Amino acid sequence: MIEDDLIISAHDEVAIRQRLLLVAMGREPADLAIEVGRLLAVHANHWMENQEIVISGRRIAYVGPLGSYRGTVAKRVSYPQLSAVPGFGEVHKHIESTHLTPEYEAALVLPRGNTWTCEASHEFANVNGTRNTEFWQKARLAGSPLKIFIQPGSAVPPSAWEESGGYYDYDEQKQFLRDDLSVTGLDEVMDWPSVWDPDNPGYARMWGMIRATFEMRGVVEGHGSGLVDPHDISAFAAAGLSSDHEVWALDEAWDRLMRGLFTELRPFSYDAIIPGLIARGLKDWSNIAFTTDDRSASDTLRDGASDHNVRHAIHHGLSPEIAIQCATINPARHMRIDQWVGSITPGRYADIVLLDDVASISIAHVYADGRLVSKGKAFTAPIPAIDWPDWATRTMNIGRVLSADDFAIRAEPGRETMNAAVLRPFHWNEDFLTLQLPVVDGLVQRDPAQMITKWSLVDRYRGDGAVSAMFWTGCGPADPDTALACSVAHDSHNVWCIGSSDAAMAKAVNQLQEINGGWVLVHHGEVVAHIHLEVAGLMTARTAEALDAETQAFLARAAEVTWMYQPAAMNRWKPGFPEFLIFATLTCSPWRWVLVAPSERAPNGFVNVQTGETHKVVW
Amino acid sequence: MIEDDLIISAHDEVAIRQRLLLVAMGREPADLAIEVGRLLAVHANHWMENQEIVISGRRIAYVGPLGSYRGTVAKRVSYPQLSAVPGFGEVHKHIESTHLTPEYEAALVLPRGNTWTCEASHEFANVNGTRNTEFWQKARLAGSPLKIFIQPGSAVPPSAWEESGGYYDYDEQKQFLRDDLSVTGLDEVMDWPSVWDPDNPGYARMWGMIRATFEMRGVVEGHGSGLVDPHDISAFAAAGLSSDHEVWALDEAWDRLMRGLFTELRPFSYDAIIPGLIARGLKDWSNIAFTTDDRSASDTLRDGASDHNVRHAIHHGLSPEIAIQCATINPARHMRIDQWVGSITPGRYADIVLLDDVASISIAHVYADGRLVSKGKAFTAPIPAIDWPDWATRTMNIGRVLSADDFAIRAEPGRETMNAAVLRPFHWNEDFLTLQLPVVDGLVQRDPAQMITKWSLVDRYRGDGAVSAMFWTGCGPADPDTALACSVAHDSHNVWCIGSSDAAMAKAVNQLQEINGGWVLVHHGEVVAHIHLEVAGLMTARTAEALDAETQAFLARAAEVTWMYQPAAMNRWKPGFPEFLIFATLTCSPWRWVLVAPSERAPNGFVNVQTGETHKVVW
Repeated sequence: MIEDDLIISAHDEVAIRQRLLLVAMGREPADLAIEVGRLLAVHANHWMENQEIVISGRRIAYVGPLGSYRGTVAKRVSYPQLSAVPGFGEVHKHIESTHLTPEYEAALVLPRGNTWTCEASHEFANVNGTRNTEFWQKARLAGSPLKIFIQPGSAVPPSAWEESGGYYDYDEQKQFLRDDLSVTGLDEVMDWPSVWDPDNPGYARMWGMIRATFEMRGVVEGHGSGLVDPHDISAFAAAGLSSDHEVWALDEAWDRLMRGLFTELRPFSYDAIIPGLIARGLKDWSNIAFTTDDRSASDTLRDGASDHNVRHAIHHGLSPEIAIQCATINPARHMRIDQWVGSITPGRYADIVLLDDVASISIAHVYADGRLVSKGKAFTAPIPAIDWPDWATRTMNIGRVLSADDFAIRAEPGRETMNAAVLRPFHWNEDFLTLQLPVVDGLVQRDPAQMITKWSLVDRYRGDGAVSAMFWTGCGPADPDTALACSVAHDSHNVWCIGSSDAAMAKAVNQLQEINGGWVLVHHGEVVAHIHLEVAGLMTARTAEALDAETQAFLARAAEVTWMYQPAAMNRWKPGFPEFLIFATLTCSPWRWVLVAPSERAPNGFVNVQTGETHKVVW
Repeated sequence: MIEDDLIISAHDEVAIRQRLLLVAMGREPADLAIEVGRLLAVHANHWMENQEIVISGRRIAYVGPLGSYRGTVAKRVSYPQLSAVPGFGEVHKHIESTHLTPEYEAALVLPRGNTWTCEASHEFANVNGTRNTEFWQKARLAGSPLKIFIQPGSAVPPSAWEESGGYYDYDEQKQFLRDDLSVTGLDEVMDWPSVWDPDNPGYARMWGMIRATFEMRGVVEGHGSGLVDPHDISAFAAAGLSSDHEVWALDEAWDRLMRGLFTELRPFSYDAIIPGLIARGLKDWSNIAFTTDDRSASDTLRDGASDHNVRHAIHHGLSPEIAIQCATINPARHMRIDQWVGSITPGRYADIVLLDDVASISIAHVYADGRLVSKGKAFTAPIPAIDWPDWATRTMNIGRVLSADDFAIRAEPGRETMNAAVLRPFHWNEDFLTLQLPVVDGLVQRDPAQMITKWSLVDRYRGDGAVSAMFWTGCGPADPDTALACSVAHDSHNVWCIGSSDAAMAKAVNQLQEINGGWVLVHHGEVVAHIHLEVAGLMTARTAEALDAETQAFLARAAEVTWMYQPAAMNRWKPGFPEFLIFATLTCSPWRWVLVAPSERAPNGFVNVQTGETHKVVW
């Protein structure tokens, strides 16, 4: 038994495989044989009947017909009624969006068939860029069976107008790839102006990271949201971006496939895409994968993890076998990690999903690392107890207590009204809105009648407590002295706050510091609910069920607030509690005008991220 | 126009792609637009009608519907009747086996659709290991449009019992992969005992090369000849060997696919495999590629290059589109070079085969690097004039003139007969044959009545002129004073010689030194024919037609010799001129007892390469 097979390294890989092949030959004893009724050979999309899978340590040594293995086996288990398929994988997922630390993510997703994840790590990396790989490997080193392949984010910081807790350039990316085989490449290149425009201040940094990835034979992942013209899609591919998961419509998927982009579909757009691809007679699905991207613990408990992705594709008409390929060999091959995951073949991790019904992806058992880890939807392996250090849990470095004054927007002397630049959530227009707002006591005021509220970003990395603020419309609390603050603010993950009074906003953000991040709701001047995300202000070290319970309590309390609402460009922006504001802080394409936390290049935070133009928020 | 796009480097790749995407967007002018009647999108196995391919420098910038490109184009060409498919690629080829240097290989294979080649380089590397990448890139740097991706050979030397002109271990492999993105990994691991057996003296070297390849995210290619048992195939895959091209029979192919091995088929075994895979209903061909491995210039002129591989598969019932995928995207993806070759998509080299009939792979034109390079089967681009240096052309370092005495096999004093160890070509048995042979004047004699002749290997690297010799059966000249010598001797490429007299053998080898390698035939005591392979003793710097003419003249003269013949284990071993003896010097699986040139570990050259056992050749 090779013990040290948790983190992939070339040195250990040699030792593991040297022994594994002797087990395959029957010259060394094996640990376990799993007998199955049939096994899906995903390299050929073929069911093999009555097979045995022979395991040594965490790996598969041998696959052959039932009873054929000539070596000795310490233990045999038999599932003649079950169908074995490879452990499912995620080609692009932010575990941060589950809001669980990796050991609890593992406990949540493994019983749902997900044994490996390509971690799109720019969320954590923007909080603490230096500790990125250390963070993702800590649970694995403590024995967690979930294999996490890390993609350092190109979005660290997300744009040249933002500052965060990480800064990745050529040197950092080169080192990640050189030091660690579980790093597969560069994650979703999403700041398109920094790719195409030589005048963009992020250009050299972005191409430095791409260059380092080319040098180390890594995969450059893309993020092509909003690209629909063949010129833009061609440019995206010509840049060397290999994939896209921002695919919302049938033609978008089709046009990307035709230009050689690996296409990563998310379940919420299956209905628009999968039946259409089938109707067009798509014969080759090998360049398609399914992926989760962002899904909360609560949603995962309700819908599922990778199992949902596969099941939902079958629901939309795809054959179960191709759907399984889209969650196993296809993403593994694309990410160039098919020697470790994505199939039930010798040399790979012994990650096996045993189905009692294939068409419904009904999971009877999951093996990971050659061990049974689930019973039904329960995780039965031990969850390692990790004492997350301060660098993970003390990340709310605002540096001071804020007051209402920090959120005030001052008028020019003697003015009774001021012009204000106004945005909505998911405001993807070329220009911001301009409205006239009243001035009281020298401060520009909200206008509830026009559904105008105040929106703010607070830096949480530098320790200077810098605050940017402007007026927004179509969102936020309608009740007085009410504010919502959150440390999940894609992708810089500063603190955002929206509120009907400056004092309530200050109170919410100050409380958020106290609890080390998460969500805080102030209603009628009082803190009434929290969600604790004490790890990086993004995640919590407890079970999905515990987080879900706190979340449901928080939402119940938030339902007592009256929330303003106007539709926005993104169709996932819904009335009610504005949970989706965590994505309203994005700065990638198709965004134009945004508010970021004060930075050197955008001192008041208001900037057009396509052009770099800055503007006053009132004048 | 980016000029420096001949050899792939990350630095240049960044500059190329930065400009290419601006061309795609229509912000910079393009060089060429090729309008085609339809285009095979190999990522989806779909024909797109009426497309235009917009090219900048050597790369594709844009693909879209006819007339859609909004930028300016210097030149437009239109082929409304033709079907565009990607330039064909070789996943595993020894250009040395064409016996042409790379600039002449290019002129031969490009009009036949082959625009890129994964060069399995252990032939040249065993002659001059140090100059390997330099050799393969010289023609490309002089402008040759054939893209050569280099796999440094694990078989340098082929086994621990051989010495050659190269020695590759961890350090060399690491450096190849670190210095050069056109190096894709480690070529065909074929010395199976050095993989599985810790006691094999080649074990540390082999695993050192594998480790270096893992570290640099390269691909480890396999060579699984003779592996038919699921234990052996599992062990092969468990070792991390990703592919096999030594696939002769249907079940061999099937059993490899089921265990996740990328399966590389050669045309001579299509009849046994392709109809069978179709009959078994194989639904997913994405892990299959076609490849040439070894094919002489003469055979290529007669049958074709990659075009033959595709055409022949269609002949055996495969759909043309899948057959084309097996020569384009499938091998490119497997080799992790799909960002450069294998599809007509933005960012890739503008390598396009224009077919006037798809089902017969009838090629009208070939574009490579964005330039028209053929008219019919004629290469119309310039062939760079390369003055191959001495390190390439002066490789016959035998170091002295040989005499008949060098080939004599001495008897023990006073003996009238001796026992002799005897092999046949492709003798794959566990044991050698033992015969009693007469002694005359103290020397053990051939026995023409039993079809016993003499076989010899001469070292051509150290300069000591060391000779090994033993008795063989079932091959060689029946005429007296006749010998055949050749410097193509897979894979060490020492000199082999077979002859009916020791004097004829010495004369043949001495003449081979004079001409710097190739073939020499001595008949009835006189040198009667040559083939000049003056580059590394393996290749010649002239056209395929010129080499073919010399080869045909040689074969005509050789047909005047009476050649002994007995069937052997390999079904490609035929009566007549024994051209296939160039492969009878192999030492990989399934070989057991072989004769190698004298080495430190096998002083008389006679060794069992599976076990390391050595033996006297007479006793």
